[in-house]
Amino acid sequence: MKSLFHNIHEECGIFGVYGHPEAANLVYLGLYALQHRGQEGAGICSSDGAQFHLEKSIGLVADIFTEKRIKRLPGSMAIGHNRYSTAGGGGLKNVQPLVANYALGTIAIAHNGNLINAERLKDELETDGAIFQSTSDSEVILHLIARSKEDNPHYRIAEALRSVSGAYSLLFLRESELIAVRDPMGVRPLSIGQVDGAYVIASETCAFDLIGAEYLRDVEPGEMVIINHNGLQSVRILQSIRKAFCVFEFIYFARPDSYIFNHICVNTMRKEFGRQLAKESLVDADIVIPVPDSGVPAAIGFAEHGKLHFDFGLIRNHYIGRTFIEPKQSIRHFGVKIKLNPVRDLLKDKKVIVVDDSIVRGTTSKKIVKMIREVGGAKEVHMRICSPPTVGPCFYGIDTPTRQELIASSHITEEIRKYITADTLSYLSIEGLKSIIPNPENYCTACFDNNYPIQFPEDRLEQMELVFA
Amino acid sequence: MKSLFHNIHEECGIFGVYGHPEAANLVYLGLYALQHRGQEGAGICSSDGAQFHLEKSIGLVADIFTEKRIKRLPGSMAIGHNRYSTAGGGGLKNVQPLVANYALGTIAIAHNGNLINAERLKDELETDGAIFQSTSDSEVILHLIARSKEDNPHYRIAEALRSVSGAYSLLFLRESELIAVRDPMGVRPLSIGQVDGAYVIASETCAFDLIGAEYLRDVEPGEMVIINHNGLQSVRILQSIRKAFCVFEFIYFARPDSYIFNHICVNTMRKEFGRQLAKESLVDADIVIPVPDSGVPAAIGFAEHGKLHFDFGLIRNHYIGRTFIEPKQSIRHFGVKIKLNPVRDLLKDKKVIVVDDSIVRGTTSKKIVKMIREVGGAKEVHMRICSPPTVGPCFYGIDTPTRQELIASSHITEEIRKYITADTLSYLSIEGLKSIIPNPENYCTACFDNNYPIQFPEDRLEQMELVFA
Amino acid sequence: MKSLFHNIHEECGIFGVYGHPEAANLVYLGLYALQHRGQEGAGICSSDGAQFHLEKSIGLVADIFTEKRIKRLPGSMAIGHNRYSTAGGGGLKNVQPLVANYALGTIAIAHNGNLINAERLKDELETDGAIFQSTSDSEVILHLIARSKEDNPHYRIAEALRSVSGAYSLLFLRESELIAVRDPMGVRPLSIGQVDGAYVIASETCAFDLIGAEYLRDVEPGEMVIINHNGLQSVRILQSIRKAFCVFEFIYFARPDSYIFNHICVNTMRKEFGRQLAKESLVDADIVIPVPDSGVPAAIGFAEHGKLHFDFGLIRNHYIGRTFIEPKQSIRHFGVKIKLNPVRDLLKDKKVIVVDDSIVRGTTSKKIVKMIREVGGAKEVHMRICSPPTVGPCFYGIDTPTRQELIASSHITEEIRKYITADTLSYLSIEGLKSIIPNPENYCTACFDNNYPIQFPEDRLEQMELVFA
Amino acid sequence: MKSLFHNIHEECGIFGVYGHPEAANLVYLGLYALQHRGQEGAGICSSDGAQFHLEKSIGLVADIFTEKRIKRLPGSMAIGHNRYSTAGGGGLKNVQPLVANYALGTIAIAHNGNLINAERLKDELETDGAIFQSTSDSEVILHLIARSKEDNPHYRIAEALRSVSGAYSLLFLRESELIAVRDPMGVRPLSIGQVDGAYVIASETCAFDLIGAEYLRDVEPGEMVIINHNGLQSVRILQSIRKAFCVFEFIYFARPDSYIFNHICVNTMRKEFGRQLAKESLVDADIVIPVPDSGVPAAIGFAEHGKLHFDFGLIRNHYIGRTFIEPKQSIRHFGVKIKLNPVRDLLKDKKVIVVDDSIVRGTTSKKIVKMIREVGGAKEVHMRICSPPTVGPCFYGIDTPTRQELIASSHITEEIRKYITADTLSYLSIEGLKSIIPNPENYCTACFDNNYPIQFPEDRLEQMELVFA
Repeated sequence: MKSLFHNIHEECGIFGVYGHPEAANLVYLGLYALQHRGQEGAGICSSDGAQFHLEKSIGLVADIFTEKRIKRLPGSMAIGHNRYSTAGGGGLKNVQPLVANYALGTIAIAHNGNLINAERLKDELETDGAIFQSTSDSEVILHLIARSKEDNPHYRIAEALRSVSGAYSLLFLRESELIAVRDPMGVRPLSIGQVDGAYVIASETCAFDLIGAEYLRDVEPGEMVIINHNGLQSVRILQSIRKAFCVFEFIYFARPDSYIFNHICVNTMRKEFGRQLAKESLVDADIVIPVPDSGVPAAIGFAEHGKLHFDFGLIRNHYIGRTFIEPKQSIRHFGVKIKLNPVRDLLKDKKVIVVDDSIVRGTTSKKIVKMIREVGGAKEVHMRICSPPTVGPCFYGIDTPTRQELIASSHITEEIRKYITADTLSYLSIEGLKSIIPNPENYCTACFDNNYPIQFPEDRLEQMELVFA
Repeated sequence: MKSLFHNIHEECGIFGVYGHPEAANLVYLGLYALQHRGQEGAGICSSDGAQFHLEKSIGLVADIFTEKRIKRLPGSMAIGHNRYSTAGGGGLKNVQPLVANYALGTIAIAHNGNLINAERLKDELETDGAIFQSTSDSEVILHLIARSKEDNPHYRIAEALRSVSGAYSLLFLRESELIAVRDPMGVRPLSIGQVDGAYVIASETCAFDLIGAEYLRDVEPGEMVIINHNGLQSVRILQSIRKAFCVFEFIYFARPDSYIFNHICVNTMRKEFGRQLAKESLVDADIVIPVPDSGVPAAIGFAEHGKLHFDFGLIRNHYIGRTFIEPKQSIRHFGVKIKLNPVRDLLKDKKVIVVDDSIVRGTTSKKIVKMIREVGGAKEVHMRICSPPTVGPCFYGIDTPTRQELIASSHITEEIRKYITADTLSYLSIEGLKSIIPNPENYCTACFDNNYPIQFPEDRLEQMELVFA
Repeated sequence: MKSLFHNIHEECGIFGVYGHPEAANLVYLGLYALQHRGQEGAGICSSDGAQFHLEKSIGLVADIFTEKRIKRLPGSMAIGHNRYSTAGGGGLKNVQPLVANYALGTIAIAHNGNLINAERLKDELETDGAIFQSTSDSEVILHLIARSKEDNPHYRIAEALRSVSGAYSLLFLRESELIAVRDPMGVRPLSIGQVDGAYVIASETCAFDLIGAEYLRDVEPGEMVIINHNGLQSVRILQSIRKAFCVFEFIYFARPDSYIFNHICVNTMRKEFGRQLAKESLVDADIVIPVPDSGVPAAIGFAEHGKLHFDFGLIRNHYIGRTFIEPKQSIRHFGVKIKLNPVRDLLKDKKVIVVDDSIVRGTTSKKIVKMIREVGGAKEVHMRICSPPTVGPCFYGIDTPTRQELIASSHITEEIRKYITADTLSYLSIEGLKSIIPNPENYCTACFDNNYPIQFPEDRLEQMELVFA
Repeated sequence: MKSLFHNIHEECGIFGVYGHPEAANLVYLGLYALQHRGQEGAGICSSDGAQFHLEKSIGLVADIFTEKRIKRLPGSMAIGHNRYSTAGGGGLKNVQPLVANYALGTIAIAHNGNLINAERLKDELETDGAIFQSTSDSEVILHLIARSKEDNPHYRIAEALRSVSGAYSLLFLRESELIAVRDPMGVRPLSIGQVDGAYVIASETCAFDLIGAEYLRDVEPGEMVIINHNGLQSVRILQSIRKAFCVFEFIYFARPDSYIFNHICVNTMRKEFGRQLAKESLVDADIVIPVPDSGVPAAIGFAEHGKLHFDFGLIRNHYIGRTFIEPKQSIRHFGVKIKLNPVRDLLKDKKVIVVDDSIVRGTTSKKIVKMIREVGGAKEVHMRICSPPTVGPCFYGIDTPTRQELIASSHITEEIRKYITADTLSYLSIEGLKSIIPNPENYCTACFDNNYPIQFPEDRLEQMELVFA
């Protein structure tokens, strides 16, 4: 059965609406604004008070949802989900929302995050007679709810979530209510807003901006928010011993115009990372350029602090398609060229500082450095990374490779510098990172310090071996 | 929850292969030959001994399965399913095979027939914590298997089927074996064949002919046939008190070139029905014409016995599409004209006997009679039906309307004749019907005599009310 | 340039409407009824009096024309075209109607038939500066019209058609009129009908039946019919020295319920062919079976005359898809089995007469004979062909192979019989054929007697070589 | 006939390859790099030395060209075309390359630019008997070539182009050669490169970078470049009295990493425009932000010169789909919000300078200013445009509205400022613009000064009326 749970790592975006005559349309717009959190597929489930309506497909939000499909989603409440593209990943059956009929009616779920004990729970549920139709760990939650003996569906959800461990920002749709829950550590963001008297809930606030909704507050770690004809009710269903907001949301995942984790501006954080990085590792240079788009604010911060020229030395092609046909005759740096092209006029014979968000395997950084040097004609290439070295895989919802594949888990910075052929390479220090984030003790920084706030799954031990070596 | 089980009536075609290097390709051909049993959608699930592969879609077999899709179905064993087009019916989620992961691995199911206690079982399963993702009663069987406490999967299937009541010819695919089961009354046909040393199982033998397989025997009522590396094993898992072969398979559903219910030729039965009908209700006429295609053999038999001229007075259009755009300006007999056109040269000023398989609501027959008279120019139109009046709905897998909609349940033949505007109308007598079928006591004739061999579902009482009135 | 004109052989169906608020919808229905004349693709062009609207696609009429597409075809006049599937054929660019802008406005054309001097005209036009965008010979006609110096578009069409030689039933759509023309020999059928005060023009009358139109008369050979706000006008634009109605329309191509060539019933002709064939070559047999569907009326006629039992010994599968994936393991008679399956009960140990419309290469007949004998179990198989031996290719619009591929062009009947492994083989005599058709001197029988009424194209000499050998 | 030529304004991208085994694949990559020049549709035509192969479709390059389609384009030479999305524009029939058969064989054309006498030429050609099948002015060129009496195809092309007036960068594909021509004023860019011994020709050099090709030189205004087995030959076919490079390519259309018009870096020009704009109209501010993406380099230049903080105050959504379903309930600034979202943290209570490339109608600028003020919370919004006021429509290949719709053609800057509700508004002066571009006399600046280097088309007079008013 292990094969079923191969691709559990998935960052996603979720969006829900209660009490709006165009609920599905707003979810569509919300998912569109959250498209950066998942491009494999998307789905919307609406309820008209009695019947559920579901549309989902592989592809991008704006391609999937035609006017015809939106019309097939009547009702004043709806939830939606963007799925992240995972290698070889499950296809349509794993695109959410998942909908199930159970003893108390029908329930739909949209899940951002990753459970770490899903495998074990699934084995137990199967032993007890459950059948699984997707390979998504979110289906486990539906089974737990269905098996609960509680009469009240809210109690059932609470009971179910007490059994699971891991990261989850969840939206549930019932016949006539919308429910949002965030795991007790609050790993993934989830915010509440309001528009035209309706409630909206989104992974990031950039989705509120598009539809003109006003931010109210975050769903709190361990909180269940129930929205129905009685308005919004809050129940604390899980005790939150510590918080573990994902620091990588600031570094890479969230959109810069979003405000997450109690309304901190992502763009501001990124710019400060760049500023701090300059404090730590400034070098003499003619120009500071970002690897677009995630490196942009940090590069601006870096240049500002260092009083250096900032410019766009790498131009991004915005029309990247799903599948790309590579010519047989190998083209140098092909994989990177599809996305980026250097501006020779800016780089020729210059000392260049390149700012990127992180280094994972090192192969892309190597291609970028070479391209800046060979095509751009740079004299020196100084790579600056606005996060600490990535040494640990994420088990809470971001798709990272195994520890063995993370170059920084087994190589010191000088070795990485040689590999990527940069003149110098510096990372942001973990202390520097923590000096910027407010209340850094509330964040998960496991990917930088192996300090996992939640136990990691036993079947992932092989991914972790270097820790114990 | 009732809404979930709205469209349970479904005639279907199933086909399975064990032990052939091109298993999925043979299933594809088998489903193609069984296309008449279901045109809404089709699916194939193969196993390569470890992994399951599933392809399914809305549409016709020959449109769904491209070479590319067949290639995505590796393995030497596979099962497939053709789904009948039911009004407003469930879409892709109900297209079979259904595949589920459970405690003992993975299992796929393809089901022809209809359970009568699915609604109650589903309620019980949900109360016990099960979640349902389709509206197909076949999913109930998967849950029952998953909940069984037996260690052996065969015992689990047997235990599950002991709980269900109704009609079912079933194929199961496990990692490395193919299992076929037929309900204890044997309502729907299911035959075993062999080709190139491989076993094949099909709803009808016409599927064997296409792939050059040889008929071995029927799966017996109440029998489980297990085919794996040990060959074919037979287990009697359910006691067969009486048989209830569906007589309507002979009248309408099966293909004339098939041999069903212990290898009786469908074409021969139909021709004999026509012959018997002529014995019972011959009338002076110039020509006997069938309503194509199901009325053809009976019309030939009728003409032969009556020593009358047989001819094709109604030409069928073979290119009928899925959706048909009707012009706003109403055209007389439009619905029928899309399918049939009379040959005026044959019918003009003639006394015409029209042979059809059955009358359901009477509306189509009325249009046909009028068209033969008005467009064809016939002097007299005598309708002959090669089955008894249809007075009861079917609960065992054929899509019939409710009792109230069956014209013969509330009208005598003379009233029906007037309604369809025929000069005369005669049905085959039920005695006549039984005089032709070998061992008629082994057949279900409930649709003609309200003699239901299996209890009918409680929630269908309203459909039955005229019986008790 | 020769490559451009490779696939000029094409039987097609055309349909036009003038003066109906739902013109495009009627054309859609008309094309649907004429689907048997071409299944590769279809198109409809409408005019709203000023603008032309065009929708065309590869595929079947009922699949191509959704309600949405029909709505994009406003106007009270429209023409449509069904294209025959030719091997390796040109794709979308050759799907008609073709629409062109020229000096006098816009004109659309739908063409059934084949020109024999298209290649030469095209060379001349190109020398004179024309550019060609399709590989259809119909485009030549558009160029000739555009180059005419006449002021009046009707004169232009007449002048253009005086230059071309061959078979053509044509529909033209201009901004506010519908024009129909038939070549001076009248090779292909074309009839005028009326419905709701609107005029309709169709290749075959079965299209009138579907929309409830009444047959008025044929477009005469050499006649131009102009329909506009002045009503219907007739102009004799080309002198008709002899007629050359295509006899193969009766034998194979037209639908049996159509009335063609001055309203002769196709079904009646076919049945008489069968009757005559029985007169000429009756043999002792237990059963007469047709190769469906074109052999059906002849088989009935044959059986009636021979006082033999008629029955459907071969069942046709109606769900034949576009592409068929053949299994690698060869299945005997596979190509034929996809379409036909014998009913063993009817054929076992019987002397069987099989009636087919024609033998082209002989390969299919051979498979059918073998299948009847091996799968059906027949004792004797007597093949009866309700047309004379096909010895000459058609250059006037029916897709036949080259002379070398026609088995009867180089083999006597006994050799063919041996090849197809029949016990006996007889064709209808050409005298027999002519004895049935009214005014046989008005028909083209070149495919049976090499008597080509129109000169055949020079570049086709190699196809004809056996004639002169 | 006028309706045919409605949408002649079209900016496009073209790419050609001669002498490479993967010619079609390189064209595909080249078109991908040029995607910003046209997103409506794309096509590739290849020649294998004898046969032409054509694939074209509506959509984006990376979506249209699957591996399967690229395989259907064999041969070592190919040309391709990206088509700009014009409102209501012609669909598939206008997607290029256009391919035609004519007296000397087959020829394909890909055209960037716009002819101003196409309408008149078309009328003359039609009068002379030509038929038109597209609404593209490029088809006129094909007709002129086909009608030329020259024996040599190169002379024919030259003769044809001597008849046309307007802007054109052209690629022709013949059976075994690639031909490139640029109009005598060189309005649109066209460059020659080399890779692996093969020649490549592209609208912009960014296409060379992707495939690793080296820039050789521009195709000169009035030059015909013929590339075949004899290598590259140059013929001066049209006299170049003056040059008229399009200055708008620098301002908006070309990609910043491209080098055009004798290899001038687009990014450098844009940055200098911003620098000059700051010289002319600096204002006290806290932050300079660009309207992404075309305003970015100018904003950087502006900030650098003004010693102000540069930042990304507007975040762009990169997943903009083809059709966008707007909710019925109007959302403020909806059209702009789909693309841009302000970062409040950066803008709140700030004096903001916004740098954009141009103002056309003014409606978008108005929404952006309001969004920065209302959503972003800016205290002051100063709009700076890095080009002079756009007062004249373009007739040479850029899709601009009519003069009446250009706000600057009838309003002074202060009126525009009021309309867009900015605190201040400044444009780059035309003198400032010319002080930056090398040899400004070689450029067309008609859109800024109504100084049209080529006569504009007579049928466009109504678009121009304000000039003469």
